[in-house]
Amino acid sequence: MKVRNLLGERLKDVSDESQIMSQILMTKGGYMKPVASGIYSFFMPTQRISRKIQKIIREEMDAIDGQEVLFPVVMPASLWQQSGRYTSIGSEMARFNDRGGNPMVLGMTHEEAAVHLADNVAKSYAQYPFMIYQIQTKFRDEPRARGGLIRVREFTMKDAYSFHTSQADLEKYYERAYEAYVRIFRRCGAKNVIAVKSDSGMMGGKVSHEFMLLADIGEDTLAICPECGYRANMEVADCIVHNAPSASAPLKKVATPGQKTIEEVCAFLGRTKESACKAVVYQENDTDKYVIVFVRGDLEVNETKLRNYLKKEIHPAAEIAPESGIVAGYIGAYGLKADATVVYDRSLCGINDLIAGGNEPDMHYTGLDIKRDIGDVTYVDVAKAAEGGICPVCGKPALTVRRGIEVGNIFQLGDRYTKAMGMTYLDSDNTEKNPIMGCYGIGVGRLIASICEESRDDYGPIWPISIAPWQVEVCNLRVTDEKVKAAAEALVGALEERGVEVLYDDREVRPGFMFADADLFGVPVRAVVSQKTCERGVVEVSTRDKTLKTEYSMSAAADEIASLVKKMLAELDA
Amino acid sequence: MKVRNLLGERLKDVSDESQIMSQILMTKGGYMKPVASGIYSFFMPTQRISRKIQKIIREEMDAIDGQEVLFPVVMPASLWQQSGRYTSIGSEMARFNDRGGNPMVLGMTHEEAAVHLADNVAKSYAQYPFMIYQIQTKFRDEPRARGGLIRVREFTMKDAYSFHTSQADLEKYYERAYEAYVRIFRRCGAKNVIAVKSDSGMMGGKVSHEFMLLADIGEDTLAICPECGYRANMEVADCIVHNAPSASAPLKKVATPGQKTIEEVCAFLGRTKESACKAVVYQENDTDKYVIVFVRGDLEVNETKLRNYLKKEIHPAAEIAPESGIVAGYIGAYGLKADATVVYDRSLCGINDLIAGGNEPDMHYTGLDIKRDIGDVTYVDVAKAAEGGICPVCGKPALTVRRGIEVGNIFQLGDRYTKAMGMTYLDSDNTEKNPIMGCYGIGVGRLIASICEESRDDYGPIWPISIAPWQVEVCNLRVTDEKVKAAAEALVGALEERGVEVLYDDREVRPGFMFADADLFGVPVRAVVSQKTCERGVVEVSTRDKTLKTEYSMSAAADEIASLVKKMLAELDA
Repeated sequence: MKVRNLLGERLKDVSDESQIMSQILMTKGGYMKPVASGIYSFFMPTQRISRKIQKIIREEMDAIDGQEVLFPVVMPASLWQQSGRYTSIGSEMARFNDRGGNPMVLGMTHEEAAVHLADNVAKSYAQYPFMIYQIQTKFRDEPRARGGLIRVREFTMKDAYSFHTSQADLEKYYERAYEAYVRIFRRCGAKNVIAVKSDSGMMGGKVSHEFMLLADIGEDTLAICPECGYRANMEVADCIVHNAPSASAPLKKVATPGQKTIEEVCAFLGRTKESACKAVVYQENDTDKYVIVFVRGDLEVNETKLRNYLKKEIHPAAEIAPESGIVAGYIGAYGLKADATVVYDRSLCGINDLIAGGNEPDMHYTGLDIKRDIGDVTYVDVAKAAEGGICPVCGKPALTVRRGIEVGNIFQLGDRYTKAMGMTYLDSDNTEKNPIMGCYGIGVGRLIASICEESRDDYGPIWPISIAPWQVEVCNLRVTDEKVKAAAEALVGALEERGVEVLYDDREVRPGFMFADADLFGVPVRAVVSQKTCERGVVEVSTRDKTLKTEYSMSAAADEIASLVKKMLAELDA
Repeated sequence: MKVRNLLGERLKDVSDESQIMSQILMTKGGYMKPVASGIYSFFMPTQRISRKIQKIIREEMDAIDGQEVLFPVVMPASLWQQSGRYTSIGSEMARFNDRGGNPMVLGMTHEEAAVHLADNVAKSYAQYPFMIYQIQTKFRDEPRARGGLIRVREFTMKDAYSFHTSQADLEKYYERAYEAYVRIFRRCGAKNVIAVKSDSGMMGGKVSHEFMLLADIGEDTLAICPECGYRANMEVADCIVHNAPSASAPLKKVATPGQKTIEEVCAFLGRTKESACKAVVYQENDTDKYVIVFVRGDLEVNETKLRNYLKKEIHPAAEIAPESGIVAGYIGAYGLKADATVVYDRSLCGINDLIAGGNEPDMHYTGLDIKRDIGDVTYVDVAKAAEGGICPVCGKPALTVRRGIEVGNIFQLGDRYTKAMGMTYLDSDNTEKNPIMGCYGIGVGRLIASICEESRDDYGPIWPISIAPWQVEVCNLRVTDEKVKAAAEALVGALEERGVEVLYDDREVRPGFMFADADLFGVPVRAVVSQKTCERGVVEVSTRDKTLKTEYSMSAAADEIASLVKKMLAELDA
């Protein structure tokens, strides 16, 4: 491919809206063009990267006995009504009526379609297990599409669904899928991907993992223990604290005029946040009923864990109605008279001299001992794990908090969908049973952007050779010189004969301009042919990641470059 | 792949709704499952066929300098408002509002998206010509989805768009695209595909061709001249008739009580239909105004040509209002007093003794000479070409009428879209101009079904080896016999080592059952291993199309079959 024929434009600058490097570099590099918020068209280089990733994914899915199928983008609402998700999923799901007035939806995931395809087909236990997967366009009406390809509304996704006759068989397969995912990310050249335990969210099911590419711009927060290898999404990470026993103190109401926040009250009373009982107020989405969470003063509430405990959707209370009996700023566990669900986080357990709100303006308690003053309460874990926190596995105070981009996920779904949709098979004991399912997703576009985030410099992406749009870029610095032109074209031809994918730049532009564009193309190997190199009978060869800069004699260059490419490919495939 | 692990079910019978063979066989064979009207999920064999076709398409598009890109399925309505098609296309286009209330559409074609991608990027004449293409899911809300994959609502399509600085350059490229299409269909093993001139319909532009796979169940009617090679969609085929001069006769009003149809009147008056002036009444869609077409009695009106002539949408008049002055059954060109647009088909030109309606009940004229009795009228070609009609190119009365399935189309679009959407480039003369476009489509699913239509027997598809889901099916007729099992598995292994794609059936089923399934899989080469063949040290090999039935010694079988596959592949790739 010649750069001069390639549709796409390299830009000097991009708009302020682009805030993360992958978006900036991929916009500057002519990889994509926005069509609407979170909806893009892609130029040839992106499509080539995407297809190489898809090929790796297909090979790994086939290697774990996957059967590639295709589900539709547009599905009848009835399918989603069967599973119950037509109502449980909100406006993320795009809906329309077809010309016959039938309600339709755009697929954002395909559990329902997978069950529909396998239903009445896999009728006997002898046909299990099996896995079907597709690579297809999905639409999810994200409220906050942003970050280029990290959070979009339309995307290409590989989604896989496995069907089993027992939980044990699912777990065995889940392990194979996990290993396949590890291979996929490694083969794509993603260096810092880790699997973390995660919340199953709208998918249902119990065990799930997210594959996270570690990056500061990631939207997810992870708790990692470097001591024992424990890794979890912050959404589900256990929060463990050890409260050293302290001397008991009498319960006493004290005036704290104007002191509302934990910081103010602790400073006013000369106490640490660890000895305060903080109140955080939420409301149930459907009833507006208040939920008051009491948590140790230095900790935050983990809303996902709270949601999972309550089994209800909640949101932070924006305003507190005066008639509720809740006195904002002075809410305390003792003497609270309010129509609210009260949740005690286990971080409070074992502290017997707490500061707490007085449930009237400008008043607090000191010396609160929950067991003594209130009685037996149920403690639950709804606090956020924190940097330096105690690892729930090895018990060491070693937790580190990192950020990551979710590039893949795997779920043990159980019979959530097959049961709801009435899919059964005849088991060996002659009874009808619901199959057990797993599902496994990878977003292709997000993976591209994530790899760009970790594999780049200030001037452009450094694409791993396994997914690079081209393997070698040949830069002809003097196309008007017949000798240089002949040498460059001979090299391009010889490389292509050897099966190397070449991007050839023979535009009449300044070398600095050409190299800036080459940095944006991110092609891993660069070969430069100029008047100088021709005079010396050599080709200058370097890698985009700057680990190699050398010269090959013109006669050996094609062979040398081809074997360099082969070596680089083999390193990722190992 | 083992048949026992393949998800999908072979059926004995299918519902009565399936009326064409490809639908019947592909439903029976477990290729697909309907999700809604015109919307399918596809099992593994179909997806394998589809991906092989896509590979051939990609290779041929790349060979004519195509750049693979990707446009979104969901587009903002604003893009289609720019081209004017948001209003000109009706309910075939699915529409919805996103969560922000923005009107969106599902792409049924991507001219607008192609212009959007290239706009402001291809700014100089030096960047032209270029072609971009994608393979993507499309949705078209067909009112009459039917025939399995022939007419669906959701489909995978390759659509390509070329951009040029002159009509001459477009024509040059159009020729290359035409040749690429010929190669694509040949390489996919479609035998009876011809290109015909076609109507450009909603695409705009002037010159276009459809690639038609000849099949009796086709929805399109074609006029073909076996003498000179003229080929056109009936929608645009010229209708030429030679009217031999006849003796003139006086205009005379005659009573024809109760004789309304052409057949009745001609029989009553003892004349041929060729001497009658038939009236056919339409109405304009937007105004309901009547359009009366006069055409020679033996011919039919071609509504597409009429529409193109009027530049208005029309429909056959269901009922004729008495106050219109039109006397149904007795409409004549002479003495007609009606508020209607009158169109004279050129088939009437040169006849000077016509039978015509009398414009009052039970009355006709004889002896009508349009020039003498009415004056100079404009004759236009709005009649359907007919079997045995005169070829507009070679002039011989040799036209044959065939039916075909449209498997691809190519259009010269001109500046219809670039002008409407304001896309310009700076030409060498330093002026801003609108690029000239071409577009080129192939529906993958329809091509699969069309090839199945022409390449099958009563028992199943006979897939051409280039697109077959697998190249060889190995049938193990006695899996319980260790020796047979070992021989069959050794053959499968040896074939796979040689790069042959094998479907292996080792189910414990009767041979007849296994062979019926094999017929439905349509795998082009079959190898049978049984107790008998093992005793004789051979493998029975046959082709699905029954042109070969032979035996190979067990030791030579893998090599022989591999070279047979290679030979069959080479024949299609030639």
